[in-house]
Amino acid sequence: MTEPIPLTGVGGLPLGPPQPVERSDAARNRARLLDSARRIIDIDGVAGLTMDRLATEAGVGKGTIFRRFGSRAGLLSALLDDTEREFQAAFISGPAPLGPGAPPLDRLAAYGRARIELFSTQGDLLRASEAGGMAEERYTVPARRISEVHIASLLRQAEVGGDIRILAFNLLSVLEAILLLPPGAKAELTLSRLARGWDELVDRLRL
Amino acid sequence: MTEPIPLTGVGGLPLGPPQPVERSDAARNRARLLDSARRIIDIDGVAGLTMDRLATEAGVGKGTIFRRFGSRAGLLSALLDDTEREFQAAFISGPAPLGPGAPPLDRLAAYGRARIELFSTQGDLLRASEAGGMAEERYTVPARRISEVHIASLLRQAEVGGDIRILAFNLLSVLEAILLLPPGAKAELTLSRLARGWDELVDRLRL
Repeated sequence: MTEPIPLTGVGGLPLGPPQPVERSDAARNRARLLDSARRIIDIDGVAGLTMDRLATEAGVGKGTIFRRFGSRAGLLSALLDDTEREFQAAFISGPAPLGPGAPPLDRLAAYGRARIELFSTQGDLLRASEAGGMAEERYTVPARRISEVHIASLLRQAEVGGDIRILAFNLLSVLEAILLLPPGAKAELTLSRLARGWDELVDRLRL
Repeated sequence: MTEPIPLTGVGGLPLGPPQPVERSDAARNRARLLDSARRIIDIDGVAGLTMDRLATEAGVGKGTIFRRFGSRAGLLSALLDDTEREFQAAFISGPAPLGPGAPPLDRLAAYGRARIELFSTQGDLLRASEAGGMAEERYTVPARRISEVHIASLLRQAEVGGDIRILAFNLLSVLEAILLLPPGAKAELTLSRLARGWDELVDRLRL
């Protein structure tokens, strides 16, 4: 049985090389387990997601879950992996304005808004996954690089001046800061306000 | 004997209310210990700074150091505290362009450059101090708030449009991202390049 290698990336976000093709029943089982895990998180948050609870929810033995994900950290990583891959597919080849077809700075605005939206639902998961001290690794991992390359490419297409590599790094840092916002700060810095702030930042690049 | 309360702030950066006035001999002893600690860090990095080593270097008993700082974490916190207070004094009331007297966006450019410079020397200390998971608390602590209020005030003076509170948050996030750069990333993202990138960002606010 082919176990996917747990890849880790931005805050436990994974990625880079495609995972090995799984046998279709193994892939189905994996998807079903991840769906069950998401259901538990929707109800009780990340803290409520234990291996025991997942086994009960999915109606499988705990051994199956450990064989599949290795550990709770591996499970969190797999959840983030799935979400990040889906997001990457959307900004690389999905519909405009996030995907190709819209003007580059409209795509950049859409990227930021989508990323903020993603963080709003995935924030706790990312924080749980970073609790082991992964925050420091955030800047060297494949998922961050993919987003940085994407942003830099849009900036170049828009013929924005200056040091594009640094500007892409800085813009991504703005989005990632939101990731670290503790729930308390969100009373003032609401996600819709942060999204408008992102639009304003992108608008400054148009001048 | 009055022990200063260990305050913690941005990445273990402290601050907010002034510390109680210490007896002058106690203050001198504290300053001497912090100087010795900085000397050790200059030579062997933060990892080289142990309580034993500091006792030897400063020629005092280990008990004195524990009474003064409580723990190694307390010592790191005190080092950051001192540096952050000095930096705050510089941007609040020091000479222009960092302090008052220069045009507000020149002060903002100077603030970022000084902060980047500060991170370049204090990065390891900050990382060591955040290793216990303090990164998440970064956005609710007094030292960050002081810098955010300062940046927002400069933006208002410069009559920059848009949501100033969010823009100040975003600009500070850019600077803090540098703090998390692992030593490896600095080969490409040099501090002088990041400083120029900051200037470019501030220039976009002038338009």
